[in-house]
This record gives sequence, structure tokens and C-alpha cells, in this order.
Amino acid sequence: MELDFIRWLREHVPSHPRAPLGLSDDAAIVSLAGQSNVILTIDTLTDGVDFRVGVDDPRRIGRQALAANLSDLAAMAARPLAAVISLVLPRDDTGASLKLAKELYEGLLPLAQEYDVAIAGGDTNTFDGPLVISVAALGQPTGRGPLTRSGGKPGDWLLVTGSLGGSILGHMFDFTPRVLEAIVLHERYELHAAIDISDGLALDASRLAAESGCGAMIFTNDVPIAAAAYQLADQEAAANREAAALMHALSDGQDFELLFAATPETAQTILRDSPLECAITHVGELATEPGLWQQHGAGQRQPLAPIGWRH
Amino acid sequence: MELDFIRWLREHVPSHPRAPLGLSDDAAIVSLAGQSNVILTIDTLTDGVDFRVGVDDPRRIGRQALAANLSDLAAMAARPLAAVISLVLPRDDTGASLKLAKELYEGLLPLAQEYDVAIAGGDTNTFDGPLVISVAALGQPTGRGPLTRSGGKPGDWLLVTGSLGGSILGHMFDFTPRVLEAIVLHERYELHAAIDISDGLALDASRLAAESGCGAMIFTNDVPIAAAAYQLADQEAAANREAAALMHALSDGQDFELLFAATPETAQTILRDSPLECAITHVGELATEPGLWQQHGAGQRQPLAPIGWRH
Repeated sequence: MELDFIRWLREHVPSHPRAPLGLSDDAAIVSLAGQSNVILTIDTLTDGVDFRVGVDDPRRIGRQALAANLSDLAAMAARPLAAVISLVLPRDDTGASLKLAKELYEGLLPLAQEYDVAIAGGDTNTFDGPLVISVAALGQPTGRGPLTRSGGKPGDWLLVTGSLGGSILGHMFDFTPRVLEAIVLHERYELHAAIDISDGLALDASRLAAESGCGAMIFTNDVPIAAAAYQLADQEAAANREAAALMHALSDGQDFELLFAATPETAQTILRDSPLECAITHVGELATEPGLWQQHGAGQRQPLAPIGWRH
Repeated sequence: MELDFIRWLREHVPSHPRAPLGLSDDAAIVSLAGQSNVILTIDTLTDGVDFRVGVDDPRRIGRQALAANLSDLAAMAARPLAAVISLVLPRDDTGASLKLAKELYEGLLPLAQEYDVAIAGGDTNTFDGPLVISVAALGQPTGRGPLTRSGGKPGDWLLVTGSLGGSILGHMFDFTPRVLEAIVLHERYELHAAIDISDGLALDASRLAAESGCGAMIFTNDVPIAAAAYQLADQEAAANREAAALMHALSDGQDFELLFAATPETAQTILRDSPLECAITHVGELATEPGLWQQHGAGQRQPLAPIGWRH
């Protein structure tokens, strides 16, 4: 449903000179009259989809809601400035929702402080339904301007931060939004394009490639698989543990790592410099031929379905 | 619950120099490094509270969601620049949610065009719950800077645009967000403070007064009562039609008119100039003594409960 709707939106929402990206990126660039651009994003998390009230600690849920937005700003290498928080709480007369609301904030406030984000306002409602948290965040591009999904070129290498898969075991709450990492990379190196991996490497790589007018190839042997992805494979008693873990790394949602494209020369420099505390891995490349492809070791190129977490 | 929580928030959300207003206004002022301020706001509407899916036309609901945000920007006399839209749709397999989503946009897009607001992005999700629409909007203050709730002074007159009450009969969907009206007033006259009446004249007047460190007096004889408020009184077969309609005008939510404060001299000039197409009425004044008061004609001052629409 989401993809059908996004296609419809792109056809029906008129372009506006003040929002030059259209609806194509993780966040929007908004031009201000006589000033430089700002970056605006909104992200909504819901009970039963992104977290489970009554199972997950509300503080972790609150952190997650803000962190997901910071990750969208990171994808554009923007510095977070401020966020506004909207809570829709289940109606109740026992004080449970008030307690829940406070705990959500107790989780998100330390993250806001860590990233120097002003919590500038919000909206609180109750209704007959499960918890919904919407966060909108405002960011400012660095001197190099915003990074987008659309600047990739055929032949570019695809690099990824951290490791992927199995986020449902905890990383989905405790991840580091790659804000500082993105700013360091964007300031020091000539990056062509970036996206945050919120819906799985395969799906998000295909999105970056499509916005860049390219195809993408994933080197399946080189995908950095998180320990949690192996843990899930073990829990599932997968016949082929390695293949099952890879599938999680390719398709699990909420990794919130950064996938970015640069020329092979720049990418090699980045890999040699290793400028971040987290790992950076060469997982693929952009190709002239559209679509998503996989290559296993020195094997033949094969199509790869853009599997991932569709809302 | 909302008021308890807002009290808690004001104690627990740290102030940040980048968001100088704290959590006190309709929208947030966000300072940008080396640039002038922008205004950021978020507002969430939910099925069963703000509208009824299956009863109300989805196009009217979509319009309402954007218009409520524009009203928040109007309260600060900010020019709307861009909005991002988050939909949380009821999960279904019949295509009904996709249809609903499209119709919501069909309602909000013409309003965006009318006010030259770039629809710059968004987020779409489905879950097992009723429809939730969050809109975040970005605005830019005019040359006079933002108008806030806090600049009112004892003795200031309180003026209101339009007429009040009974919005549930249709005005809640079709109202004119007072964006242009606020900009005209703020540019031509020295306004001290403003708020949009989203939760009822009494409650919102008490909020403006509290932020200004004043009390407020409402002249109950002078409140401009909407025809819809009388209609509601008739539907209720109220014993005292006039009193019932007044009660609606004082306490009904979603009027989205502008309540503002200015010195008696400025207010008289505004009333004489009548610079807007809509009516402007002198409904009360700010007082030294805190709290909310009412005066009926030449009668004694009496306390007025800050009745209104609490979420």
C-alpha cells in the first residue's frame, strides 16, 4: 500500500520551488527567502508495528521515535536543530497514559541532549486506539549543502556503516543515529548520494539507485552481518544459518545505518582512512543497468528482489 | 490529562537557546545559526476526536489537518512555507485505506496551493487502529518578527476575528486559517500577543493571559456568537437559547479564529479601520489580577471557568 500511494503522491503533489527535492528523499529541503536552506522531516511510529507497548520499555520507545528522525537528518548530512513531538495516547482513566507519556519523554530527552536538539514544542492527544508518536525534526545542512539520494553515478561504490540485520532484538531501540558520522564523511570526502537504511539494505539500496537513475549491485559475500542476524537465524533453526543471517541483513528494517555512494577512488580513500569509530564496508556498486542485482563472490550477477520492510 | 502532562513537560523539557519560547506557544520559534528564525509546529488529528471517518468527507478531513497547522502559524503571524504530512491509516486489504489516503490529499492540496505551502514530504504507515494525521508546518516570521502569547499587558483590549461556537456543524472543516489576517494586522498595528482559538475562547483567552502574566476578562454580552452556535442551542432545545449559544461560543473547540491583544488606542484604531474582510470584535481585556473573569453588561465581575475543549 505504501509504495502504490507514494507513486500516486509523486504524480499528484505539485512540485514547488521552495521544496526542490519533491518527495524523493528521507527529508525535505526547504528554501527560506533570502537565507540558506533548512531540512525538515517527519516520522511516525506506531504500537504493534514499530514497538509493542506493554512489552518494550517506553523509554526505549521514546528514544527510538526521536532517533529515527535524527537518522533521516543524518541521511542528508544535516545538523539537527530542533524537534517537535506529537503523542497520541490510548484513552484511559487510570493514569497509565500519563505515566506512559512521561516515560516516553524520559527516553527521548537524553538523546535530544546528546545531539543538542531543542525539543521545541509538540501536541498531545488521547483517542481510542494504540499509541502513535510523530516527531518532526528540523536540521541545517553543513557548508557543503545537503546530501541527497539522487547524486549517485554508475560505477560508484556503495559503502555502509556498522552491521546489518536482526535489529528487532534490540538495535531498533538502541541504535546510534549516524548524524555525526554523516557530517564527518560529507565534510571530508566527496560523497555522491546517501540514504539511511530504515527498511532493509536491499530495498533502500534500490531506492538510492532509482533516485540516482542507476541500478545497484550488492556483493552478498561482503554484507556486514550483525551478530543479532545470526542470533535470529539460530532462533529460527535455519537449515542454512549463513543464508538466513544474510537474508536478515538484506531485508530487516530499522538498522538505521548509513548507505552512501562515492567514486571508487574516494571510497578507497575512506576505507583506508577509516575516519569513523564504527566499521565502514564496501557492499556493492551502482550500475548503468536499472534494477537491483546481487553477486555472490566471483559468481554470475543475478537479480535481487528489493526485499525489505514495507509499511 | 493533557494539562497535567503539559505542566510536567514544562518542568522536565530543558530550555534550549535555540528554542527561546520553550513550550508556551502555538508553534515554536527556532533560531538558525547566522540566519533569522523560523517557526515550527506540529498538530495531530485523530478519528473519533477531531473527525469521524465514514461520516465526514475525507477531503474535508485532509483540509482540516493542514488548516489547523496553518492556524498555529497564523497565531504567530508567520508566513507558511512548507508542510510535511504523516498518515497512519487503518490496516485493510480492500484498498479502502489507499482510497482514503488519496482523498485526504485531494482535500489538503488545494488549501496548500491557496496558501502557497510546499508539501515537502511525509510518511505513510498502516496499523491496527483508527486514522491519525500529523502535519508539521514550517513558517517564516514577517519583518516584525513573530507574535507570541506572552506580550499582553494589563489593560490591553482583547479582539477576536469572525464569530465563535458551533464549529462542529461544519466550520471545523471549512474555516479560513487566519494567516493573511494575522500578517495584515501584525504588519499594520502594534499587537502585543495572539493565540488561535482552537479549544474555545475561554480556555484560549486564559492561556494567552497566563503566558502574558495577566488575567483576562470576557465581556459576555459582546462575544460574537456564530449562527451555528444558535443552531446547536436550538437542536438541544435549550431553555435559555441565548445562554446556550453563548456557552458554545465560549467553550466549543475548533473555531480557529484569532484572539489578540493590543493597547486600547491601537485596538480602537483597528476597530475603526476594520482592515479585514471578516469581523473584528472587542470581547474583553487583560487585567492585573490573574485568572479568567466574565462581565455581563454593566454587571459585577464574576469568575469564569476556563471551559473549553481539552484533549
